Amino acid sequence: MSRLAVGVDVGGTKVLAVLADRTGAILAETRHATPRTHDAPGVVVADAVAAAIDELAVTSGQDLAALPLGVGVPGMLSYDGVVAFAPNLKSATGADLAAIMAARLGRHLVLANDADAAAIAEHALGAARGVDDFVMVTLGTGIGGGVFAGGRLLRGRAGFAGEIGHMVVDPSGPRCPCGRRGCWERYASGAGVARLAREAAAAGRLNAIVAARGDDESVRGEDVTHAAAAGDKEALAVLEEVGWWLALGLANLVAVLDAGRFVLGGGLGEASGLLLPPTRRHLVGLLEAGEQRPVIEVVAAQLAGHAGAIGAALLALDDAAAAL
Amino acid sequence: MSRLAVGVDVGGTKVLAVLADRTGAILAETRHATPRTHDAPGVVVADAVAAAIDELAVTSGQDLAALPLGVGVPGMLSYDGVVAFAPNLKSATGADLAAIMAARLGRHLVLANDADAAAIAEHALGAARGVDDFVMVTLGTGIGGGVFAGGRLLRGRAGFAGEIGHMVVDPSGPRCPCGRRGCWERYASGAGVARLAREAAAAGRLNAIVAARGDDESVRGEDVTHAAAAGDKEALAVLEEVGWWLALGLANLVAVLDAGRFVLGGGLGEASGLLLPPTRRHLVGLLEAGEQRPVIEVVAAQLAGHAGAIGAALLALDDAAAAL
Repeated sequence: MSRLAVGVDVGGTKVLAVLADRTGAILAETRHATPRTHDAPGVVVADAVAAAIDELAVTSGQDLAALPLGVGVPGMLSYDGVVAFAPNLKSATGADLAAIMAARLGRHLVLANDADAAAIAEHALGAARGVDDFVMVTLGTGIGGGVFAGGRLLRGRAGFAGEIGHMVVDPSGPRCPCGRRGCWERYASGAGVARLAREAAAAGRLNAIVAARGDDESVRGEDVTHAAAAGDKEALAVLEEVGWWLALGLANLVAVLDAGRFVLGGGLGEASGLLLPPTRRHLVGLLEAGEQRPVIEVVAAQLAGHAGAIGAALLALDDAAAAL
Repeated sequence: MSRLAVGVDVGGTKVLAVLADRTGAILAETRHATPRTHDAPGVVVADAVAAAIDELAVTSGQDLAALPLGVGVPGMLSYDGVVAFAPNLKSATGADLAAIMAARLGRHLVLANDADAAAIAEHALGAARGVDDFVMVTLGTGIGGGVFAGGRLLRGRAGFAGEIGHMVVDPSGPRCPCGRRGCWERYASGAGVARLAREAAAAGRLNAIVAARGDDESVRGEDVTHAAAAGDKEALAVLEEVGWWLALGLANLVAVLDAGRFVLGGGLGEASGLLLPPTRRHLVGLLEAGEQRPVIEVVAAQLAGHAGAIGAALLALDDAAAAL
């Protein structure tokens, strides 16, 4: 049985490949930018994964061809490996990714939703060890989710479970790229921070940031997290608001799932030192019967940016073990 | 092994007790009004259950003392049988119902959340047979939920999963008895129909109903369903709006759970002939990637008002079989 596996995390902006073992130890890793093209759904992604694995072989000095391979991708991935919808990876939408990747790479592989892969890694090795009911919340451009219920990954009828960023929390809210209005990720993701920051700028707040950027419309989410980290009170007020919305969505997930822990990851999750305090502060008041429940923990991911790639490697190791 | 069991469904307004077998056949049943008192949390409920069972013994002409007993109750019931919160059964909130009932009845029993019990019955015998991923939606005064994921009842960390009526769908919406604003059940339950009907009446619609009731504020939900059943266009327009909100919450549940079917039960669910068409019509457009998903079915419960009691009986039979 193989003790090492290749895990690849295909994100909206980068492709991360790791050579890892079951303990999450990373022997080698590579990063590439995700190709930005809308042509040939799936093929571009398969090419990028192939290039990442080739480079990983060079970096690690190992022949990776015989190792189990797992690949995490964003979006709604069906059980048979078709990407039904992936607003953050448009080049893959509609693609039979399982078939395209197997053909391009000439090998067996395991495909998973990226947030599901991250949830598996955090459950096995990170911030959700021993927790049967938790939700991995990946705060990137949007919000991805991996749900564990009763110790098992919740996948749903077609494999699309965990699209938590698209719970509608205000039907008259701002437009979402998914085509609807008021999705949770319009308020509590990287894009949500940017949107709330532009609203604050338009209302005459965040003057230091607006002065640095030149105008309201150019204010970005990371401007806010950087300014907040430096103690800017108006930036902290925006993050307070983001924390309120984040807590609102977590409370909705608690209503449905009775999750006992939330693990925050993703790019914005890395600003969790700033986001966790307001989120925790607002959560109890936003829960149904918040005072009558055991405490619901909101914690930062431990495997940080590597969770998705490590989870993909773990899935590949499980798959290889099951095939024996 | 017992082939019969007693199932009791304690609702906000009535206590239904049945003597049933594993096929859902009901040999006898009794109904009582739920006592309306806030004294002695739990004791009043236990007394009502005891009275229901005594009468069921008389009605059926059988000695029920040795049969398995299951009891469904509304609200947030913990794994150890404590009612953490039950806005529709205030006399039980805070009660260690498992201990109180066992003492009062002098026998072993199985406790469950009422919507969970209904979900178990519809899964075993009703509208969700063979469906691994579905949600039982009980539309009564509020909205209760029983969630199946991967063929198993989803219970959560403390046993509180399925409180779907308290997803917030508009944080600036109307006040909910749970203490927050804009919970889904303010729009799509019996209380939601009544609220939307009063809004319509205040806006000068529903004139026939208002004239019959005397004033806007006296308009009730069932006035609307009755008028709609008789073809009243303004009443149908209110149910169209209710169906939109119902579909919005179902879409949120699909985002999180990827459920493939929703089974509508409860008092308002019995008006499903009127509610199903607008709900189905709005659902596809309210889903993320609605066109890219397999069809999500929205159907009426088959066991109707008996689902909770039958489910409680099934749980008791399973518990008795496991104890052998």
